[in-house]
Amino acid sequence: MSTGPIPPSASRSLDRPRPTDQSDVRRHNAALVLDCVDAAGPLSRARVAAHTGLTRATVGTIVDELIAAGLVSEKGTRAPSGVGRPGTDLALRPEGAGGVGLEINVDGYVASVVDLAGTVRHRAARSGDLRGRTATAVLRTAARLVDDAVAAAYDLGIPVRGIGVAVPGLVDLGEQVLRLAPNLGWTDVRVVERLRSYAVTTWPSPMVLDNEANLAALGELWVGGHGSADSFVLVNGDVGVGAGVVLDGRLHRGTRGFGGELGHLTVAPDGPECRCGARGCLEQVAGLDFILRQAGVRDAPRTGEDAVAPLLARLARGDERAVAAVRQAGESLGVGVAALVNLFDVETVVLGGIFAPLFPWLDEPLRAVVRRRVLSAAWAPLTVRPSALGRDAAVIGAAYAPLRDLLADPLGADASVA
Amino acid sequence: MSTGPIPPSASRSLDRPRPTDQSDVRRHNAALVLDCVDAAGPLSRARVAAHTGLTRATVGTIVDELIAAGLVSEKGTRAPSGVGRPGTDLALRPEGAGGVGLEINVDGYVASVVDLAGTVRHRAARSGDLRGRTATAVLRTAARLVDDAVAAAYDLGIPVRGIGVAVPGLVDLGEQVLRLAPNLGWTDVRVVERLRSYAVTTWPSPMVLDNEANLAALGELWVGGHGSADSFVLVNGDVGVGAGVVLDGRLHRGTRGFGGELGHLTVAPDGPECRCGARGCLEQVAGLDFILRQAGVRDAPRTGEDAVAPLLARLARGDERAVAAVRQAGESLGVGVAALVNLFDVETVVLGGIFAPLFPWLDEPLRAVVRRRVLSAAWAPLTVRPSALGRDAAVIGAAYAPLRDLLADPLGADASVA
Repeated sequence: MSTGPIPPSASRSLDRPRPTDQSDVRRHNAALVLDCVDAAGPLSRARVAAHTGLTRATVGTIVDELIAAGLVSEKGTRAPSGVGRPGTDLALRPEGAGGVGLEINVDGYVASVVDLAGTVRHRAARSGDLRGRTATAVLRTAARLVDDAVAAAYDLGIPVRGIGVAVPGLVDLGEQVLRLAPNLGWTDVRVVERLRSYAVTTWPSPMVLDNEANLAALGELWVGGHGSADSFVLVNGDVGVGAGVVLDGRLHRGTRGFGGELGHLTVAPDGPECRCGARGCLEQVAGLDFILRQAGVRDAPRTGEDAVAPLLARLARGDERAVAAVRQAGESLGVGVAALVNLFDVETVVLGGIFAPLFPWLDEPLRAVVRRRVLSAAWAPLTVRPSALGRDAAVIGAAYAPLRDLLADPLGADASVA
Repeated sequence: MSTGPIPPSASRSLDRPRPTDQSDVRRHNAALVLDCVDAAGPLSRARVAAHTGLTRATVGTIVDELIAAGLVSEKGTRAPSGVGRPGTDLALRPEGAGGVGLEINVDGYVASVVDLAGTVRHRAARSGDLRGRTATAVLRTAARLVDDAVAAAYDLGIPVRGIGVAVPGLVDLGEQVLRLAPNLGWTDVRVVERLRSYAVTTWPSPMVLDNEANLAALGELWVGGHGSADSFVLVNGDVGVGAGVVLDGRLHRGTRGFGGELGHLTVAPDGPECRCGARGCLEQVAGLDFILRQAGVRDAPRTGEDAVAPLLARLARGDERAVAAVRQAGESLGVGVAALVNLFDVETVVLGGIFAPLFPWLDEPLRAVVRRRVLSAAWAPLTVRPSALGRDAAVIGAAYAPLRDLLADPLGADASVA
């Protein structure tokens, strides 16, 4: 939360922009208090007042409302610490709200319930090669996973505040249409509308569609332990490869929301044909298909998490062919990361999706290429690290998106208190 | 100017951020009035008041000060138009202030004087291959060009408000050091400090160093007719190739100011060696050297504007080898532009430097590659056009930079009025 407090008693201050009425002031201050409890809790009402600059009376009123809304809980009685009477500590109530996330990828689905603290409370994955399957078939199956997740949240007593959906392609955010998912062979699919039409249980609103790499970057930013002022690019690997560009704590989607398509960067102009129609795209020489083929992994389903497990087993025992395959992918990925750094000048690259578990083998060849191909390498050191959320950054970002809206306005029009 | 007016009479308004004192208000309003006269003039004081929302009395006082500072002039008496008495129209006074720009490139120098209206009032270019020459030799020659430009501005009666310097490499903006210019073979050169030490005449302050592609993008934005809300990438071609990324009217330099290094994008991993130490960088297969070599242009100095003239003559008469060379460069450039669009999702690409005069021959092969290699091509049409400033976008941007500061605060501490 970058904005300062707006205590009602100081609302005539001339030094800062002022909300238009008392209801705005109350909502703004509620977000401030909740953010403080989330970031620094458990802590007493008095310390919340000290942290936020609000009066103790204002904090008291807001805390009562946040407790009534189920978002904050009191943590017993603190031992007296020197002066003053003992008080109760306030803490975020993780089960006070949750989000449901769905990731539809080329090689399977994952659905999750994430609580207000960013903890995954339910997770169900289904592997399977979705290429060649119709959108109808895929979305019907996906709708079952969402039904199950909504039911799981209900069983856990977690009120669901919305649903996020991550897809591997170009998303028109305004229209909420998946314009193109080259690896699935889909164009212009109204994913949200169709998923809802297949729902068996009652799903909460809102429901929002976004690109998987963008949601993975947001998951990393919100839940993965990044500070809000951070700049990084998350490179998400699966059959396809995408990037989410976060500069100064903000995701940059490009003019029309179609940015971050790292997987279609040309790394070998005469290389293998890509599902997008071009040749030598990065994902053809660094994606899951390439790695499994080069590694000679044929004894496992070639999709989803099931496909990476046998590869990881071979890598762990030092299988030369597997190691060489991942190193080769790491070099290609290095060309893509070098392009990101030459163009965006980012200082941190986070590897997500299948690249997260493969990081120990990708790291060194990737870095060697970056050192050679980034013009500013000597003046601008680059950090490369795996996502703190492993393969699930995208589905966690999808699930947490509605909770970010809640945190920004916990006592807003949609809040459960009057 | 995106901020609204702050009439002193309304300074107690609670609805907007408020400057801390009356002097700030006066300076802010002066910028607003000058911007209005610049954008919409010539126009009367009454219409300036109507446009800006300031009172006529406030406008009158500010206009008097801007006239005294030499930045605004009165344009005779307007004919009466219906009601009211005839008034005088106000116009920006182009010769009221000027900037000096210097571009040091791999194949020569250009220095310019640009006036407040963005018109080039003096231009002197010197061709010559600067590769292998010492920084001392190059900067001594460059200082002579600046001396001449400062003298030319004096002769024209234009007060110089500062000097901008464009260089082909990585600039540390904070330290004002050229960290690396691979094609010149320079590292860690304190360009501004050393230029000043070679000055014969007295040079005005401030003097600011920046990357040539960044300044070319700013020149295009400020002087080349782009609106301030525009998003585009300027691709600047010479021996090297660079990009300046403007999103929503703001130049994005990256985390440390080292972004936009399009010339070092890998387009052919096993391609020719680059001066940066890597292989297959874009500038090796799309830059000036490549084009002249492929075109077989050996009968001319292979540097500067002198080198492009014989190439353009061959292109104009349809010389097959020359046309094929530029088309080949256009295809490589298409790979680079496709990367920019896949990653940044920009909708306009402006070709500057030598790419501006070569545009008629580059355009079609470049577009064909972009159509094939940009994932969102079908949903997000791309405009490619030559820079309105031709080859001189960088030096014009360099010269205009101090004038942007002046326009933002025309009656500031440095202004000539008390």
